[in-house]
Amino acid sequence: MLPKPSKVSRVITVLSGGVGAARLLGALSMVMEPSEITAVVNVGDDLVLHGLTICPDLDTITYTLAGLNNDKLSWGLRGESWRVMDALEDLGGEAWFRLGDRDLATHLYRTQRLAEGATKSDVARELCEHWGVAVRLLPVTNDEVATMFDTEVGRLSFQEYFVRHRHGIEVSAISFDGAERAVAAPEVLDALRTCSRIVIAPSNPLISIEPILQVPGIRAILEDRHADVVAVSPIIAGAAVKGPADRLLAELGHDVSCVGVAHYYRGLIGTLVIDQADAELATAVRERGINVHVTTTIMSSPENARRLGEAVLS
Amino acid sequence: MLPKPSKVSRVITVLSGGVGAARLLGALSMVMEPSEITAVVNVGDDLVLHGLTICPDLDTITYTLAGLNNDKLSWGLRGESWRVMDALEDLGGEAWFRLGDRDLATHLYRTQRLAEGATKSDVARELCEHWGVAVRLLPVTNDEVATMFDTEVGRLSFQEYFVRHRHGIEVSAISFDGAERAVAAPEVLDALRTCSRIVIAPSNPLISIEPILQVPGIRAILEDRHADVVAVSPIIAGAAVKGPADRLLAELGHDVSCVGVAHYYRGLIGTLVIDQADAELATAVRERGINVHVTTTIMSSPENARRLGEAVLS
Repeated sequence: MLPKPSKVSRVITVLSGGVGAARLLGALSMVMEPSEITAVVNVGDDLVLHGLTICPDLDTITYTLAGLNNDKLSWGLRGESWRVMDALEDLGGEAWFRLGDRDLATHLYRTQRLAEGATKSDVARELCEHWGVAVRLLPVTNDEVATMFDTEVGRLSFQEYFVRHRHGIEVSAISFDGAERAVAAPEVLDALRTCSRIVIAPSNPLISIEPILQVPGIRAILEDRHADVVAVSPIIAGAAVKGPADRLLAELGHDVSCVGVAHYYRGLIGTLVIDQADAELATAVRERGINVHVTTTIMSSPENARRLGEAVLS
Repeated sequence: MLPKPSKVSRVITVLSGGVGAARLLGALSMVMEPSEITAVVNVGDDLVLHGLTICPDLDTITYTLAGLNNDKLSWGLRGESWRVMDALEDLGGEAWFRLGDRDLATHLYRTQRLAEGATKSDVARELCEHWGVAVRLLPVTNDEVATMFDTEVGRLSFQEYFVRHRHGIEVSAISFDGAERAVAAPEVLDALRTCSRIVIAPSNPLISIEPILQVPGIRAILEDRHADVVAVSPIIAGAAVKGPADRLLAELGHDVSCVGVAHYYRGLIGTLVIDQADAELATAVRERGINVHVTTTIMSSPENARRLGEAVLS
């Protein structure tokens, strides 16, 4: 039994990718009013497959905050079944991107609503209302931004790289098709301008946070407010907790450490939260003019998550 | 145990809607080589829902000929489950058009293939190959044709009228958006020109056969070859075996009988197959210059189906 959370009442905005952000948003919800948290969510991973518009980061966060996430897979819904995918595979269809039956309902719902003229913002709000998620989820833009990878086997979309090739091939460059023409979705710039603190979730800097920063207007706000920006390092002891952040940082010439993360976010953040395992790197981060908060950043238990939430708000 | 079919070797082409056509094609497959049967299939009921391209008539025929059809529902697949629809309904999504989990795989497959540049013709062939259906299924066109209903509640698409309103509202006119600009799909005109016999399935003349006839080139071939065209009346004893054919014929001023069907197809057919229940109407049909074949047209048993198949070929 955890002690009753001491709710801190202040409005924050969190730049968010998928799993790492979902967990941080959950941690923050333990120590403040969820309704005072806004997540500005990456859409660079979004894809259209089988005609369905799929927003993996929005869905991962929604499912996680609704308590419906599949912890075992770290994506999709718990208690999921695979009737459609099994039948599609049997037909010889594109079944490499596994969509569970209940998860498919989300994509059918979104796609139908988009066809009716709704935006991704509308759908995110509707799904959160449906599942009682109080955190406000804002896709960073309702325009198309596609994170693309130049690899040893050619130019790949996010999901081709990430899921089909299991991020196991070398990347020489990353780009964000459509980003420079994208318009920030309603409420996004306002949420970033008016919150008391901006948080960069421990998501992949190169492929989850960067496509958010690329949407015109957003980087400038962070530069302007960098003293109010706190990032949580996704690199602990030289490795990513999950996913290819470590590999990609190395392939693209960055230092694979919280110092490399600090360098990547230079000019954008005032504080970096790093893990105890990296305590000896605090000085190197401070030398870059960035404050450091050392704590346990792996959200492996509710107690750890709560501690990280408090560190981010402190 | 049925006697071994006496296969009649001649090539025929069947203008086909959904369930009635599927059953007739099954009946014909009992008395001739299935590979010598071509079905030219209505696409006026096709719809895009949840971003998925759905071809109800093509799918009904494919599932039926593959022996996978759900007889109880008279649409979809047998042994079907409803995980996705139940979840979609729970989300408040558009769940009035029930799509089973396995059926959804067909629509995902088709939609993905169309996105890759395939045509409905290609997909129909691929699905038939997958399920071992030897009858050749040709969508009448790969262009969009939409059967539309002017009703007491406004202009409705086919599925809005048929499924959402369960064809229970009054219709004042039917039109076929896009038909006059549609181009017959590959092999369609050739199949109609070169077959030894053209059959019009006992599908709804107004909404299943008419959108086929509206595709430029098709009506002219039937007029030219009317002596070789055999239709099976979908009206028996003044009623449709299934669906709203009787109601629609009446609402649009046609005689609700096999004589009305003969009149509707005047100039296009040389022979009408009518049910024994309508034997006394044979003379009235013949007076319109159309030959009559009287038999049992309800395919309620394999024996009846076989007899109808033989009647159509005789």
